[in-house]
Amino acid sequence: VDPKRLRDLLDRVSRGETSPEQAIESLATLPFEDIGFAKIDHHRQLRTGAPEIVYGEGKTAEQIARIAERIHLAGNTAIVTRVDREKGEAAIPMLAPQVEPHARYEAKPRFLIVGRAMPKSGRGTIAVVAAGTSDRGVSEEAARTAELLGNEVERIDDVGVAGLQRVLSVRDQLEAAEVVIVVAGMEGALPSVVRGLITRPVIAVPTSVGFGASFGGIAALLAMLNSCAPGVTVVNIDNGFGAGYAAALMNRRREQ
Amino acid sequence: VDPKRLRDLLDRVSRGETSPEQAIESLATLPFEDIGFAKIDHHRQLRTGAPEIVYGEGKTAEQIARIAERIHLAGNTAIVTRVDREKGEAAIPMLAPQVEPHARYEAKPRFLIVGRAMPKSGRGTIAVVAAGTSDRGVSEEAARTAELLGNEVERIDDVGVAGLQRVLSVRDQLEAAEVVIVVAGMEGALPSVVRGLITRPVIAVPTSVGFGASFGGIAALLAMLNSCAPGVTVVNIDNGFGAGYAAALMNRRREQ
Amino acid sequence: VDPKRLRDLLDRVSRGETSPEQAIESLATLPFEDIGFAKIDHHRQLRTGAPEIVYGEGKTAEQIARIAERIHLAGNTAIVTRVDREKGEAAIPMLAPQVEPHARYEAKPRFLIVGRAMPKSGRGTIAVVAAGTSDRGVSEEAARTAELLGNEVERIDDVGVAGLQRVLSVRDQLEAAEVVIVVAGMEGALPSVVRGLITRPVIAVPTSVGFGASFGGIAALLAMLNSCAPGVTVVNIDNGFGAGYAAALMNRRREQ
Amino acid sequence: VDPKRLRDLLDRVSRGETSPEQAIESLATLPFEDIGFAKIDHHRQLRTGAPEIVYGEGKTAEQIARIAERIHLAGNTAIVTRVDREKGEAAIPMLAPQVEPHARYEAKPRFLIVGRAMPKSGRGTIAVVAAGTSDRGVSEEAARTAELLGNEVERIDDVGVAGLQRVLSVRDQLEAAEVVIVVAGMEGALPSVVRGLITRPVIAVPTSVGFGASFGGIAALLAMLNSCAPGVTVVNIDNGFGAGYAAALMNRRREQ
Amino acid sequence: VDPKRLRDLLDRVSRGETSPEQAIESLATLPFEDIGFAKIDHHRQLRTGAPEIVYGEGKTAEQIARIAERIHLAGNTAIVTRVDREKGEAAIPMLAPQVEPHARYEAKPRFLIVGRAMPKSGRGTIAVVAAGTSDRGVSEEAARTAELLGNEVERIDDVGVAGLQRVLSVRDQLEAAEVVIVVAGMEGALPSVVRGLITRPVIAVPTSVGFGASFGGIAALLAMLNSCAPGVTVVNIDNGFGAGYAAALMNRRREQ
Amino acid sequence: VDPKRLRDLLDRVSRGETSPEQAIESLATLPFEDIGFAKIDHHRQLRTGAPEIVYGEGKTAEQIARIAERIHLAGNTAIVTRVDREKGEAAIPMLAPQVEPHARYEAKPRFLIVGRAMPKSGRGTIAVVAAGTSDRGVSEEAARTAELLGNEVERIDDVGVAGLQRVLSVRDQLEAAEVVIVVAGMEGALPSVVRGLITRPVIAVPTSVGFGASFGGIAALLAMLNSCAPGVTVVNIDNGFGAGYAAALMNRRREQ
Amino acid sequence: VDPKRLRDLLDRVSRGETSPEQAIESLATLPFEDIGFAKIDHHRQLRTGAPEIVYGEGKTAEQIARIAERIHLAGNTAIVTRVDREKGEAAIPMLAPQVEPHARYEAKPRFLIVGRAMPKSGRGTIAVVAAGTSDRGVSEEAARTAELLGNEVERIDDVGVAGLQRVLSVRDQLEAAEVVIVVAGMEGALPSVVRGLITRPVIAVPTSVGFGASFGGIAALLAMLNSCAPGVTVVNIDNGFGAGYAAALMNRRREQ
Amino acid sequence: VDPKRLRDLLDRVSRGETSPEQAIESLATLPFEDIGFAKIDHHRQLRTGAPEIVYGEGKTAEQIARIAERIHLAGNTAIVTRVDREKGEAAIPMLAPQVEPHARYEAKPRFLIVGRAMPKSGRGTIAVVAAGTSDRGVSEEAARTAELLGNEVERIDDVGVAGLQRVLSVRDQLEAAEVVIVVAGMEGALPSVVRGLITRPVIAVPTSVGFGASFGGIAALLAMLNSCAPGVTVVNIDNGFGAGYAAALMNRRREQ
Repeated sequence: VDPKRLRDLLDRVSRGETSPEQAIESLATLPFEDIGFAKIDHHRQLRTGAPEIVYGEGKTAEQIARIAERIHLAGNTAIVTRVDREKGEAAIPMLAPQVEPHARYEAKPRFLIVGRAMPKSGRGTIAVVAAGTSDRGVSEEAARTAELLGNEVERIDDVGVAGLQRVLSVRDQLEAAEVVIVVAGMEGALPSVVRGLITRPVIAVPTSVGFGASFGGIAALLAMLNSCAPGVTVVNIDNGFGAGYAAALMNRRREQ
Repeated sequence: VDPKRLRDLLDRVSRGETSPEQAIESLATLPFEDIGFAKIDHHRQLRTGAPEIVYGEGKTAEQIARIAERIHLAGNTAIVTRVDREKGEAAIPMLAPQVEPHARYEAKPRFLIVGRAMPKSGRGTIAVVAAGTSDRGVSEEAARTAELLGNEVERIDDVGVAGLQRVLSVRDQLEAAEVVIVVAGMEGALPSVVRGLITRPVIAVPTSVGFGASFGGIAALLAMLNSCAPGVTVVNIDNGFGAGYAAALMNRRREQ
Repeated sequence: VDPKRLRDLLDRVSRGETSPEQAIESLATLPFEDIGFAKIDHHRQLRTGAPEIVYGEGKTAEQIARIAERIHLAGNTAIVTRVDREKGEAAIPMLAPQVEPHARYEAKPRFLIVGRAMPKSGRGTIAVVAAGTSDRGVSEEAARTAELLGNEVERIDDVGVAGLQRVLSVRDQLEAAEVVIVVAGMEGALPSVVRGLITRPVIAVPTSVGFGASFGGIAALLAMLNSCAPGVTVVNIDNGFGAGYAAALMNRRREQ
Repeated sequence: VDPKRLRDLLDRVSRGETSPEQAIESLATLPFEDIGFAKIDHHRQLRTGAPEIVYGEGKTAEQIARIAERIHLAGNTAIVTRVDREKGEAAIPMLAPQVEPHARYEAKPRFLIVGRAMPKSGRGTIAVVAAGTSDRGVSEEAARTAELLGNEVERIDDVGVAGLQRVLSVRDQLEAAEVVIVVAGMEGALPSVVRGLITRPVIAVPTSVGFGASFGGIAALLAMLNSCAPGVTVVNIDNGFGAGYAAALMNRRREQ
Repeated sequence: VDPKRLRDLLDRVSRGETSPEQAIESLATLPFEDIGFAKIDHHRQLRTGAPEIVYGEGKTAEQIARIAERIHLAGNTAIVTRVDREKGEAAIPMLAPQVEPHARYEAKPRFLIVGRAMPKSGRGTIAVVAAGTSDRGVSEEAARTAELLGNEVERIDDVGVAGLQRVLSVRDQLEAAEVVIVVAGMEGALPSVVRGLITRPVIAVPTSVGFGASFGGIAALLAMLNSCAPGVTVVNIDNGFGAGYAAALMNRRREQ
Repeated sequence: VDPKRLRDLLDRVSRGETSPEQAIESLATLPFEDIGFAKIDHHRQLRTGAPEIVYGEGKTAEQIARIAERIHLAGNTAIVTRVDREKGEAAIPMLAPQVEPHARYEAKPRFLIVGRAMPKSGRGTIAVVAAGTSDRGVSEEAARTAELLGNEVERIDDVGVAGLQRVLSVRDQLEAAEVVIVVAGMEGALPSVVRGLITRPVIAVPTSVGFGASFGGIAALLAMLNSCAPGVTVVNIDNGFGAGYAAALMNRRREQ
Repeated sequence: VDPKRLRDLLDRVSRGETSPEQAIESLATLPFEDIGFAKIDHHRQLRTGAPEIVYGEGKTAEQIARIAERIHLAGNTAIVTRVDREKGEAAIPMLAPQVEPHARYEAKPRFLIVGRAMPKSGRGTIAVVAAGTSDRGVSEEAARTAELLGNEVERIDDVGVAGLQRVLSVRDQLEAAEVVIVVAGMEGALPSVVRGLITRPVIAVPTSVGFGASFGGIAALLAMLNSCAPGVTVVNIDNGFGAGYAAALMNRRREQ
Repeated sequence: VDPKRLRDLLDRVSRGETSPEQAIESLATLPFEDIGFAKIDHHRQLRTGAPEIVYGEGKTAEQIARIAERIHLAGNTAIVTRVDREKGEAAIPMLAPQVEPHARYEAKPRFLIVGRAMPKSGRGTIAVVAAGTSDRGVSEEAARTAELLGNEVERIDDVGVAGLQRVLSVRDQLEAAEVVIVVAGMEGALPSVVRGLITRPVIAVPTSVGFGASFGGIAALLAMLNSCAPGVTVVNIDNGFGAGYAAALMNRRREQ
């Protein structure tokens, strides 16, 4: 599947250095490690230098520890998302002794991290705007994701559309960013307003903040998908991680 | 049901001017006229001076003509809503000769009107704001309803949140109104933004303008119901008439 | 953004009392206070005399205390909504010593209040009708909001459509109000019936009272949006606060 | 499957009048006629005397004619529902010559009928109430169904909850009925109000009359399912036929 | 509102036995008792002899005790529905001493009852069929409601469509009933199958039994509303009480 | 991607018969033909002998003709689904002269077919049951798909759950089949009933037959997904083709 | 209902060995045992040799024990699904002493099993693929169901579409199976990808793994129903049991 | 609102070149042109060099012509989206004579364009992938938008997940792009698969291609929002324009 690897292999077969049988076996040695309940793709990490992301919800502390450990021992950084405090603190002591010192739990974004953040790189900064104080769990997930992937992040909190001065007062900061992430619940109007004020791409993150007909974030999600301001793209409800990751891709220098 | 009428009746019974049998019959002479397929409430009109509103959708031209005619002959004004041009133009010649000259069809709000608008009264003006040119059918329905009910109306068009200067440029006009109606489709963010800029009550009207995940106006409706700016109340999708009517009630002087 | 303030500033620049640099800085001194996780808009309160409303859900007791404190110290009244008893009672002792005596928790509307209610003013009274005993949490939120914003409130409880005499028996009270708030769950029919009996504007509040196909208040919400009685406007499910606030705006004398 | 028939058969087998083979074949002679694209249950009609009902939507004029013809020739009456005028008028000339004179198309309930209505019987009358003139297509479907099934029907039109006098004025008529069918669109509040006024069972029929958030009758359907007045049962949106049929069952004398 | 009462009153006014003022006051003495948070309609009970039903969800034990007590003291029976065991057992000791001995809590239908069941009457029996053992909470609510309202009830449990013999084996029992209530969750197919086998009216009760795409009973509700067997009417999800009440109305002798 | 092909290639490289460069180019010669707006996978057809299926909706007659032509010229059979009559009859004359004689349009399943059906094979027959006459368009799509893929098909029509004898009378035919496809709209109860009577796997196809709360087939879809009879699997609404194809896979002899 | 049994009975009646009365009684002795709150179909088990499946949710430990006990005593195996650990461990000691030793609780599929698995038979193996580690509860329910019904099962875990090598690396294993069950949450894309790679039928099981707009598995369910790869059939969200059962039916040799 | 403009203005006021009155008036001369039914923001175009986008749906040919004309006369390019052929061809002759030669209608993306595309710039190319031939209307809207905004675009058609070779064969082309737009209907799985193969950001566009439970694109939309491959952001159903615009922003060089 990797063209260079395939060409090398064929060259070796052609030169008689590798038999066809060995070549097939080699191709079958797939670039991931199978630990039974999970298959870990070390190859992708080696290729991109990015941390491996593990979805923590629905996994036990034991499973999380085993997966994160293998990632770390293969020389990579593991970020486990959506880990509540109790599970995170249970998982760390379950790590192998040489891995445990490299692990930490971060409560706000609910991350278990084993290893180091990527070095700062990227074309510019990523701005993360939260409409209300209640949206900050999600915005922090976005901000930390972008930071761990090697980006400068600027956090801007409590910027609601009902007080437009607050939005206007941060316009220059937003325009200066390479990409802007806007996190909002309730009526989800902030991404449209922000996008109308600046020339940068906006990633909108609906949150489940609200009640009644917010339907757990559906109202905000729909508002963002229907934004009259072109250039807004949207991620799943409460998906701060996905927004931070997408912003990191957009902010990436091509040569990386 | 009308306390004064009941007291008068009882007084007359008490004085022997009316027999109990007559009193019962009189109470049974209900204050509406039954024309078979419809019951027309002339009494309400006489009491309030307001035109009688008829929902035109799903009624034939013939039915519309018969109902409007009876209302007019009882001395009131009839407004038939949601009448498309073809049906409206078919209904007018079906009116009685003495009624027809008082009838006209208005294409933008899709009204068939028989009779005169109420004289201008009310505490102040009603501002009707449309987010986009495509929302104007609904905003015109709201504006004409308010005018026919005796209000001064100020129309403001094409004020989208993606171009905030347009909103800011009309703030003083909006603040000067007694009530502000805001009509918007797509993400429905305008009522929140407007309400944050002024101190007047805002009636939000979601429209079915949009596509895909606007779901025929649901996105805008939900956004408006979840407005983070308190003081926004909402009517049904595309219900310009309902908004105009509610605004008229709010703008009404108590002594009316 | 405030035209008067802008004119004063320009006048001072024009008279040489203020340099252009100072003017820009002055405009940049935005009319809100930034306390990190929140931006507090003292200006709006000073201008309107209204209490500042804080959405309490999803905020910690600590955050609530800090925000309410700053509002109070700036000379305003803070109302924090949707605060459950435990959080409310935890937040009060976290207030600064000079602020704490002005704070109180109200269990029925779930409000944490720091400061005084606005003095009574307004054109008339606001009637708050609850369809059932189970709807009273929401109706009390509406009633207290209106009271704290300076309105006379009349509460009417347990008025269901299945016993029409109950509705008819309070008609005169309702007609006497300036605005009527109607709170109902289940099939949400009460606002239509009330609106048909009186000439005042009706704000309908759907509640999540019900089960099965009430879908947490959706049935009542849809019924209210589709009311055949014009002049009914609607707020979000269980949004007693929003209804009380909107009613207060409608009841406000223009000169305020 | 029919106990009496089974006992007779077994008696005949027991007396040697029928061989076991014949008995099995006889049971296999199923009590319906198979005409290829349809299986017609003449047996049910013979047993109950009720017309056979055919769902007309999605069937061609040709199919409708063939099915109705077979029903008639077997000595029964056929009612084909949801037949638009064009299809109905096309189907009649396709009937066999001896059947055609017994066929007629009724436009309001959209029925194609071949044969006679059942003779009047039943415990009492069935009242069919329509909230608005636009609901009359559905209410007529209910009324005609009940009539064809041998019931006295009383039609009451244009009785909306926004004009309570209209409801109150017909209370005695409603109370006098054995069963009351209430047909309403928009917010669907009328069945609750009617049920609160009388002691008879109420069958509620939501209609698709309305716009926007009526969602083609969902709002009315939900309101009716959540009625706070016990004793209301509900049928599908626009299902006048189903309501008429259920009412006929409820009105049926046991000995029938 | 009660015609006889009105006529008597007018007669007395006419004969000078009552002054008009007294008559008005008498009419104003509404036929319910207002105990602040609730308005109790003793009149309806006196008129119909039926117990007064109170919706228990969302009410405190204290409120329930107060309401039930007043109903009992007025000579009627109170049924409070949807009362969980804890609340029910807390409410009984809060009753007045002379009322408490008449109160009992029934766990299966979750009823708090104060007073006696109505004497058995009605045209015939009411059959209550439950599709599965898990549906029995709802079916018991239906059965007990019907019994308390004075009906003979026959319970039939665990009759699923996947084992048709079970349905066929109880057909004669079902046909013998005056009305049949069918309670089912999951795909909700049982009412259609039952209705196809018998000639009695069927009231279908969808339950929230199921998982995934049963969506808390929506799948069963929709199946029942779309039944291809005419004569099925439907109540809200898990609304055993409503079904039992409606069946009681249908089974009522006219002279009651 | 095809292991055998890869091994052959590597063998040839190993023996010097193919250079590494040629091998890479050969792998790059992807097993499909690119005709600009479509990529046609001739390889899959050659491997499996099955016709190539093209989704016809949203494609022009011209596009359909071009794609079908290329498939036929590569020695395979093309089935284009969801082609209405007008488009189908327009596409045939657009085919190349040597292809046109092999093409035909079938109106009931709405197929354009170019080439021959697969020879009959398979373990047994596939039964296709339609609940009503209106469901036959979908059931015919299923039946014809299965036939074209080389299966014996038995069609059984008009078998509704409201007339259980009809279902019982065909039980033996159903049990004799290898797989049973059950097509039903409205309440979608038939697959549960059928599955309860036989021991064969059932594929359920919900149809959009119905009105009101059938919501275009959602009611039937949900009922089928929630079947209490295990062994029922479900396809999309009106997806007769998908059911026929899945049944063909299940009926396939392993050696094929 | 069982034709052979009916013929035997009729033969006996014909030979005078059985009276018609006895025959009727014998037919009434239905092939299930009624234990009050449940009717147990021993007959089906005897006929097919398959375990009897009981839906455990909503049943008490006592009810589960009673039902499972009767099944076991009738010589069959009982599988009770959706039993959480606490209930399962409570039920086992409630079994009769001679039954208890045959009972065990399995935590991963949440099964209470009384008796033995069926002996291995079937045409081939059933592969059960889980997209992620979090989906394994559901995939284990599918795998164990298939095993208990007598099938060889191959489990393949953690095969997500975002790492295609993982899917490609197991293609041969999947192709070798008779039927493939694919379990996936989130976007539910795996069944389409798997089906495109192999020629076997695929049963897709959506899971509730995900957050926000996954809506508890609706996103995955819809994706699977709309699969562009024909031959995918779908079961309810999280319905591992249903998928395992359907796969067992498809894998069954005809002579069984 | 524009800081530079404000500073210049204040400088002129400070130097006495402009009076405060003139300054206020100048600020009030808002940077858009009001043509009655629309407000046109020439300023934004001048500042960014980008064409002005007009939403064409719900506007008359006359309105479109007037708006496009004004944009062109102000020296900018107008793109009107969602214009069907008939309206587009009607609008062009309505343009002023000097504008008409610059106008053209493009049928595939349904654009009316007046003026020239922006000169090519941007960091790299934008790849636009369509899953099926039926998705090409939407993908062409995306591609043309990106081209008109000055980007190199590479179109790749008919790449479905059911034929993975087609996806794998274009991987290098996709990796070479700066941003990748993936357009897909039905189950919407393609963006996840593509994102798993490359390191570039992916913008997913769900289309309404599909039937039944695709619900007009909802299935694809939900699948994309729930993508397990991080770095996918989503736009509204069928919103090719929005995707093209967002991609253009991401591909923009900072200095622009």
